[in-house]
Amino acid sequence: MKGYAMLGIGKTGWIEKERPVCGPLDAILRPIAIAPCTSDVHTVWAGALGERKDMILGHESIGEVVEVGELVRDFKPGDKVIVPAITPDWNTTEAQNGYSMHSGGMLAGWKFSNFKDGVFAEFYHVNDADGNLALLPADMDLRAACMLCDMIPTGLHGVELADVQFGDEVVVIGIGPVGLMSVAGAAIRGASKIYAVGSRPNCVELAKEYGATEIINYRNGAIDEQILKLTDRHGVDKVIIAGGDNSTFAEAVRMLKPGGKIGNVNYLGEGESIAIPRVDWGVGMGHKSINGGLMPGGRLRMEKLASLISTGRLHPEKMVTHEFHGLEGVEQALMLMKEKPRDLIKPIVLL
Amino acid sequence: MKGYAMLGIGKTGWIEKERPVCGPLDAILRPIAIAPCTSDVHTVWAGALGERKDMILGHESIGEVVEVGELVRDFKPGDKVIVPAITPDWNTTEAQNGYSMHSGGMLAGWKFSNFKDGVFAEFYHVNDADGNLALLPADMDLRAACMLCDMIPTGLHGVELADVQFGDEVVVIGIGPVGLMSVAGAAIRGASKIYAVGSRPNCVELAKEYGATEIINYRNGAIDEQILKLTDRHGVDKVIIAGGDNSTFAEAVRMLKPGGKIGNVNYLGEGESIAIPRVDWGVGMGHKSINGGLMPGGRLRMEKLASLISTGRLHPEKMVTHEFHGLEGVEQALMLMKEKPRDLIKPIVLL
Amino acid sequence: MKGYAMLGIGKTGWIEKERPVCGPLDAILRPIAIAPCTSDVHTVWAGALGERKDMILGHESIGEVVEVGELVRDFKPGDKVIVPAITPDWNTTEAQNGYSMHSGGMLAGWKFSNFKDGVFAEFYHVNDADGNLALLPADMDLRAACMLCDMIPTGLHGVELADVQFGDEVVVIGIGPVGLMSVAGAAIRGASKIYAVGSRPNCVELAKEYGATEIINYRNGAIDEQILKLTDRHGVDKVIIAGGDNSTFAEAVRMLKPGGKIGNVNYLGEGESIAIPRVDWGVGMGHKSINGGLMPGGRLRMEKLASLISTGRLHPEKMVTHEFHGLEGVEQALMLMKEKPRDLIKPIVLL
Amino acid sequence: MKGYAMLGIGKTGWIEKERPVCGPLDAILRPIAIAPCTSDVHTVWAGALGERKDMILGHESIGEVVEVGELVRDFKPGDKVIVPAITPDWNTTEAQNGYSMHSGGMLAGWKFSNFKDGVFAEFYHVNDADGNLALLPADMDLRAACMLCDMIPTGLHGVELADVQFGDEVVVIGIGPVGLMSVAGAAIRGASKIYAVGSRPNCVELAKEYGATEIINYRNGAIDEQILKLTDRHGVDKVIIAGGDNSTFAEAVRMLKPGGKIGNVNYLGEGESIAIPRVDWGVGMGHKSINGGLMPGGRLRMEKLASLISTGRLHPEKMVTHEFHGLEGVEQALMLMKEKPRDLIKPIVLL
Repeated sequence: MKGYAMLGIGKTGWIEKERPVCGPLDAILRPIAIAPCTSDVHTVWAGALGERKDMILGHESIGEVVEVGELVRDFKPGDKVIVPAITPDWNTTEAQNGYSMHSGGMLAGWKFSNFKDGVFAEFYHVNDADGNLALLPADMDLRAACMLCDMIPTGLHGVELADVQFGDEVVVIGIGPVGLMSVAGAAIRGASKIYAVGSRPNCVELAKEYGATEIINYRNGAIDEQILKLTDRHGVDKVIIAGGDNSTFAEAVRMLKPGGKIGNVNYLGEGESIAIPRVDWGVGMGHKSINGGLMPGGRLRMEKLASLISTGRLHPEKMVTHEFHGLEGVEQALMLMKEKPRDLIKPIVLL
Repeated sequence: MKGYAMLGIGKTGWIEKERPVCGPLDAILRPIAIAPCTSDVHTVWAGALGERKDMILGHESIGEVVEVGELVRDFKPGDKVIVPAITPDWNTTEAQNGYSMHSGGMLAGWKFSNFKDGVFAEFYHVNDADGNLALLPADMDLRAACMLCDMIPTGLHGVELADVQFGDEVVVIGIGPVGLMSVAGAAIRGASKIYAVGSRPNCVELAKEYGATEIINYRNGAIDEQILKLTDRHGVDKVIIAGGDNSTFAEAVRMLKPGGKIGNVNYLGEGESIAIPRVDWGVGMGHKSINGGLMPGGRLRMEKLASLISTGRLHPEKMVTHEFHGLEGVEQALMLMKEKPRDLIKPIVLL
Repeated sequence: MKGYAMLGIGKTGWIEKERPVCGPLDAILRPIAIAPCTSDVHTVWAGALGERKDMILGHESIGEVVEVGELVRDFKPGDKVIVPAITPDWNTTEAQNGYSMHSGGMLAGWKFSNFKDGVFAEFYHVNDADGNLALLPADMDLRAACMLCDMIPTGLHGVELADVQFGDEVVVIGIGPVGLMSVAGAAIRGASKIYAVGSRPNCVELAKEYGATEIINYRNGAIDEQILKLTDRHGVDKVIIAGGDNSTFAEAVRMLKPGGKIGNVNYLGEGESIAIPRVDWGVGMGHKSINGGLMPGGRLRMEKLASLISTGRLHPEKMVTHEFHGLEGVEQALMLMKEKPRDLIKPIVLL
Repeated sequence: MKGYAMLGIGKTGWIEKERPVCGPLDAILRPIAIAPCTSDVHTVWAGALGERKDMILGHESIGEVVEVGELVRDFKPGDKVIVPAITPDWNTTEAQNGYSMHSGGMLAGWKFSNFKDGVFAEFYHVNDADGNLALLPADMDLRAACMLCDMIPTGLHGVELADVQFGDEVVVIGIGPVGLMSVAGAAIRGASKIYAVGSRPNCVELAKEYGATEIINYRNGAIDEQILKLTDRHGVDKVIIAGGDNSTFAEAVRMLKPGGKIGNVNYLGEGESIAIPRVDWGVGMGHKSINGGLMPGGRLRMEKLASLISTGRLHPEKMVTHEFHGLEGVEQALMLMKEKPRDLIKPIVLL
């Protein structure tokens, strides 16, 4: 079968591979919608995961089941399904401890295009079909559905990590597709003021539509200083980090009230360490909690988040700015992601 | 001064009383907006709190400060303020334990028209002004603001007690003004499907506008049976009880998944006990958590919930169906509440 | 193979059955220690689960693996293992929701001697070996280890459901083996005063040794009245119910402070419903949370609780008052459990 | 009156000051037991809080009430009381938000010897007597009681911040008096293995007595490496930081499992920032939560922790290695704290 792969750091191309084999608990799918992710770009061109040879890329896909293992209970060929980017091993001690995304080791619930072939192929393999697939609701827009794989669960997990409560003032740093979902998520989690940090016009527009009450542009000065000015130097209740880099944490700590929480869902691709400013962190005793985590995956999560689309609470399809058709389209879509033209939020490929 | 009082069980009328005295931490206010509450009706005509002689009624008011004690830091005469129905003593052990509404004893954070004169008077007294008042935002609609005293915090506390999470299916039982705020609160707390139980047409209309995805009318059969049918007999994740009576809990337990939670904010006015059905409750081991609590009051709560109105997350003014003017109007407003005509949701009196 | 079974309601006896078949994820074990449980008595003589024909009894066992399925990663024949009474299906949505004990339906994580053959047999079957077995530490006393199957996790879950915090005053109602583990668990969870409700002398003795600071005997009057007297009528912070019957909940509500929590781990075998007293429950608004749940099972739980024995935090072997030898001994052990002589706490059978 | 004061950075001495004035909610106390704290040493000789002129030192004291304000309800002259190091303003929004220690600003619940005169004087002032004092139980050892002011609540808060659960493996870094209380607290909060990091023989001895199962000496190599070796490279569930410096956090992150939590109660006195290692922190997505906070103070906290001593759960008096008598003794006690001889854990002064 054909797949679009990382050939090595800095190189991508089409390759031929054997169609994956279906284990007794697993499923083989063919993609019906796929989307490239910034992390695919990191993986290939920044070598963020280290060297990978001929690994098929992609971890965002809606698919159709073509084969299931003999122990699979709830799915059958022909079913259209949502496939989360994170597909844990559910009977591990990590999953039993509530951290299924780290089943088998830190971050090891992330399998596609990390240490196994991804979804940019004619066929792909999903471990534990019953635990990791969710039926696609009949009338769901494929563009919206495809955002369920990674953008929505990651963005909303930022809101959960920051533990947003009724009436909280929240800063969302970064308004790419994940940050936009954090904005939308904060709004349907009870935030009052939402300060969205970003500058690209179409993202700013959508952030406002999703619930941002104020836009902070870093070109107007240090963002923590802007937030402190807007809040009478009290700071905000919660900060969600969905963009920026290692230095963003220091800004986040400074703009946070004592008792506040940071929820990071940004993949930190470079640098030795993150510096937490000692005095602004209350000399270690300011109750400014620093949290960061990979999105939870699995079937239940997909079902619950899909219901947020079905009931009109989330409108993720508005983020899809570019649409391609046919598996071949994924090459262009990925390059678009790499180049990041000003009108891009998220591309999608329909098959 | 003049006040509208409970003269005894079943009797109300205008009385003359001394203007209340301001302690060193306290404030004296004159009302600028007031609203009667169903619990005023319970107090007078059902004798729910037992006998009360010449106690001024009312616990929902926006006011203007006319006097403050010498230890008050943050308020001064002329300030327009939101006054929560619940005004705790903040330095008690109960408040330190996180349950300020029970400061001084169970439910004893509720003082107005419970064991001290209420707000239906020319002047009223607020204990601990710094801890219990919040500045009224300059441009806030008085009808919306007046819902902050009790309807919003009570309705939203139901959502908190039920611990609504992203994608939860939620039932809200009762869609009077508190239940409507539970519907609106569930929608901005991450619920997907919201089943609202009620039948009055204007309430049904508003419930839908606030986020209900389905209306359940008890006239069409037992509500638990209706919910179980609609959910393929799986039940829902959470149930908020904002109406009904003691028997409502059995229905709630039956419509709940294992691991689900009930949040009650309904004042249970009669009967010996609430019956929890043994088998549906998993013979004691079904992880169906039963919670009920009085709204949290105090300044911070008012500030945070006010910000939900300011940012357009909540639109409580839509519940105000009847408007009266002048202190005298409160008599008519209360009688309306007692009679509950079909077009009533919530009356308000502007002074 | 031979097994000791429920032949029908009220009848037990030895039967012959086929040795169970090992699925690809499963294991077949032979018991090396087993213990009867009060719930076995309920199942047979009270018919608590309804009719069961020739179902092998027992759900508490330490075993030796004799066969594993081809998909099992971490266990092999010859391994000595702890087998929890609750063996969930870990890839279900219920488990993903944090309630693995209800995987497949309310209480359906409880399989042994509920809807599949139990452990009182020459061989027994364990579903999902990797998810549900834990290696027996080399030097662990079998009597202590056997308490890990049910008595310890159930007793400690009561402590978790009641959410015991540093310095809490806690009542434990019932000091059979589960209640004794609740006492010991409360003491190593931060409780200060622990009021243990019971009367059997050997249980009282052990409750004190495990950390009870006061013994409440129901023969000296209503237990809620005794607790209220001892606490200056303030009540306690938390109540763990590990014995009694449906009426115990009313007592628990009465002895609880506002903001308090009840954690029930008692199997409620009879009656239509549990009555919650309306006024003592704060007319629905007293923040007295009522929780009850089946113990969490699975491998991680067994490993973590085993480590509490290995490090000397728990001494469950002291509860074992009677010891039998050989599979045949289970008949006598069960009858002892049924008759409950005054010197019995817990019997065990070593094979 | 006489007091022992910081005269300026690096200088201490006896001074004369006016006896403090009692506000309407306050109390004036004379000390009956006092203890110097490492933070007094930091304040004076490291200038950790910046310059302070003639500020009386000390924040750990058991006292006798000599005067109360006219609004004080529950205390009267002659009462012997426990005085927490942290005495919040309970009606502030920070306290209402659950972070009373930051009432009035980050860390501003810490008043004694921070921005008001401390307890090393003939008399001292306590704000909000009802909210901040607790009656000393009649028969409580003064040495034990004096540890309630800071050592116990700080040590135990580390356990709370790290969120220790039944069966957790926990590392406690630092076994001075605070770290020792973290060890003891972890043991009565459900930890199984407790790795205590330290080297002073008497501290090591006491750590073992308090529940440490393993001692890690940094002289034997990097502590994270030692922990990883001892745990088969899995790491531990929780880390409590009660000593070390800014670099300790990197070690803590490395020795932590994904899903683990760090609870810091160490005052970080120097340096620009704390470095969190990017890769070991899961590139921002490892769910290794970093928390740090000042101890909660106030009356309820003192009452609850005192009950842990009364019921024999904690034995803090064992930490008191040196005893002085009379107010003058505080000079010697403080110098001892500064010099830290090898046999010192904690000195106390009885008056």
